[in-house]
Amino acid sequence: MVQEKIVVMGAGAVGCYYGALLALNGHQVTLIGRPGLVEAVANKGLLLERQSGIETVALAASESVEAVADASIVLLTVKSGDTESAGRAISPLLASNSIVLSMQNGIGNAERLAVILGRPVVPVVVYIAAEMAGPGHMRHRGRGELVFPEGPDSSRLASLFNDAGAPATVSNTAETAMWTKFVVNCCVNALSALTNQTYDQIAMHEGAEQLVKDTMHECVAVASASGVSLPGNIWEIVWNVFSSMVGQRSSTAQDLTRGRKTEIDHFNGEIVRLAQRFEIDVPVNNALWTMVRIAESK
Amino acid sequence: MVQEKIVVMGAGAVGCYYGALLALNGHQVTLIGRPGLVEAVANKGLLLERQSGIETVALAASESVEAVADASIVLLTVKSGDTESAGRAISPLLASNSIVLSMQNGIGNAERLAVILGRPVVPVVVYIAAEMAGPGHMRHRGRGELVFPEGPDSSRLASLFNDAGAPATVSNTAETAMWTKFVVNCCVNALSALTNQTYDQIAMHEGAEQLVKDTMHECVAVASASGVSLPGNIWEIVWNVFSSMVGQRSSTAQDLTRGRKTEIDHFNGEIVRLAQRFEIDVPVNNALWTMVRIAESK
Repeated sequence: MVQEKIVVMGAGAVGCYYGALLALNGHQVTLIGRPGLVEAVANKGLLLERQSGIETVALAASESVEAVADASIVLLTVKSGDTESAGRAISPLLASNSIVLSMQNGIGNAERLAVILGRPVVPVVVYIAAEMAGPGHMRHRGRGELVFPEGPDSSRLASLFNDAGAPATVSNTAETAMWTKFVVNCCVNALSALTNQTYDQIAMHEGAEQLVKDTMHECVAVASASGVSLPGNIWEIVWNVFSSMVGQRSSTAQDLTRGRKTEIDHFNGEIVRLAQRFEIDVPVNNALWTMVRIAESK
Repeated sequence: MVQEKIVVMGAGAVGCYYGALLALNGHQVTLIGRPGLVEAVANKGLLLERQSGIETVALAASESVEAVADASIVLLTVKSGDTESAGRAISPLLASNSIVLSMQNGIGNAERLAVILGRPVVPVVVYIAAEMAGPGHMRHRGRGELVFPEGPDSSRLASLFNDAGAPATVSNTAETAMWTKFVVNCCVNALSALTNQTYDQIAMHEGAEQLVKDTMHECVAVASASGVSLPGNIWEIVWNVFSSMVGQRSSTAQDLTRGRKTEIDHFNGEIVRLAQRFEIDVPVNNALWTMVRIAESK
């Protein structure tokens, strides 16, 4: 096995999880993140908590982006709102042969990043439930699969993650998978955030199913105008969230509660932006986007 | 002047205000309300706070509905969700010649009450900003005008309130006024509640004007199907709230914050109910209604 030099740019829960798995499999990993994370990892390593238990993973961490210069692979895991600034920070440092992966929520991040970097970026669909339980303490709650689009590096990258214990596949429908995840986020995140309620509680209320359907139908119309065809069972996929994620609130709800900026501009806000381009009415997505923005301005 | 025996059924801020004005003008007024109010009024009278200052008003207060038996006029000021239970409580006691006024938010309260009482009920449109500042302490913030529909008792009732200092008119467009106020409530209350933000702050956000317009257009369609024509400048009336009520949040926002049941079923919920009858799509009103209900279930 080739030892890769891997840099995680913007190490939150997602970046720490995959960085830890790759480090445990013998790769040289550097997390670039906030001072609290860097200090914790320097002092005691990264705590990786899974159902099987907690272990400490030794890896490098830095507040500076300098390490990007040596990277053979960069995993970009910043929030969608920070894609441009992260891209501008790493662009002057990237080696010509390094590969950049966008492992973010939303659609279009890889494309926006590619423009800034002047090179292709691999958009990876990430299915994971994870959170930072404290500084340097990553908690994995479930899943962890990755889907890569077809491309020159895809099978090598999928093997890299598979070998490290993260189930990864290469698919000719990766764009559909990315959009499906995006539509699910549009249908569930704001609703949980504005009501500050868990998915299973939301689903019990009269009107909730209609609200989620109305949100989804607007998203499907925008996807169709964008040339993307969603799975035939998209409704089942969306509605399943409300029964399968019992007791959980959305990441947007958690962001609002903690006074952090949400990703709403890249969920329902992106639907509104695309809908304007295609002259489609999306009143429910506009309502959800606008209200979350107002709520987070407090 | 004839001294009337007036009972305020469900004395909150609105009922205390008009009850106090009528008592100050020499009428015999009894407030029927919650134990906290009754105890405070029995001990020290009702505190009436206006811009001109605070004064104490001596009047009767009771938790029991018995006083209704002697009333020549009953002012029903309970929340819309309590109309039926209040009607059933007073129905066996009402004298045959007593007059009942519905001074409530929403539409249809007078009609629902009339069915229970087996007699006509006068629907009064109330324009007031008021709150209970504490037990037995009513704070008037602004306005106070009343609009009566044309009817056999209307000019006598309008005089009763006018003489007591509450500007009251009789109008052949009282139903339009009632619906206009209702549509305004549908457009502003839930939005302020779900974002927990003040009107002026809401209006500053991209998307807010579109959201309010979308809400209003659905309401206008339902009004039209219901045979009600709204004023031509309904949009100006609605949008004016966001600039005229600086620093204020909606009553629904205050209810949510205090863990009280809101009137949302009688605002956006009523639009949803009527829309189903007329087979009109009202996705934004359904979203607002549903999310407030979910939020208040916590």
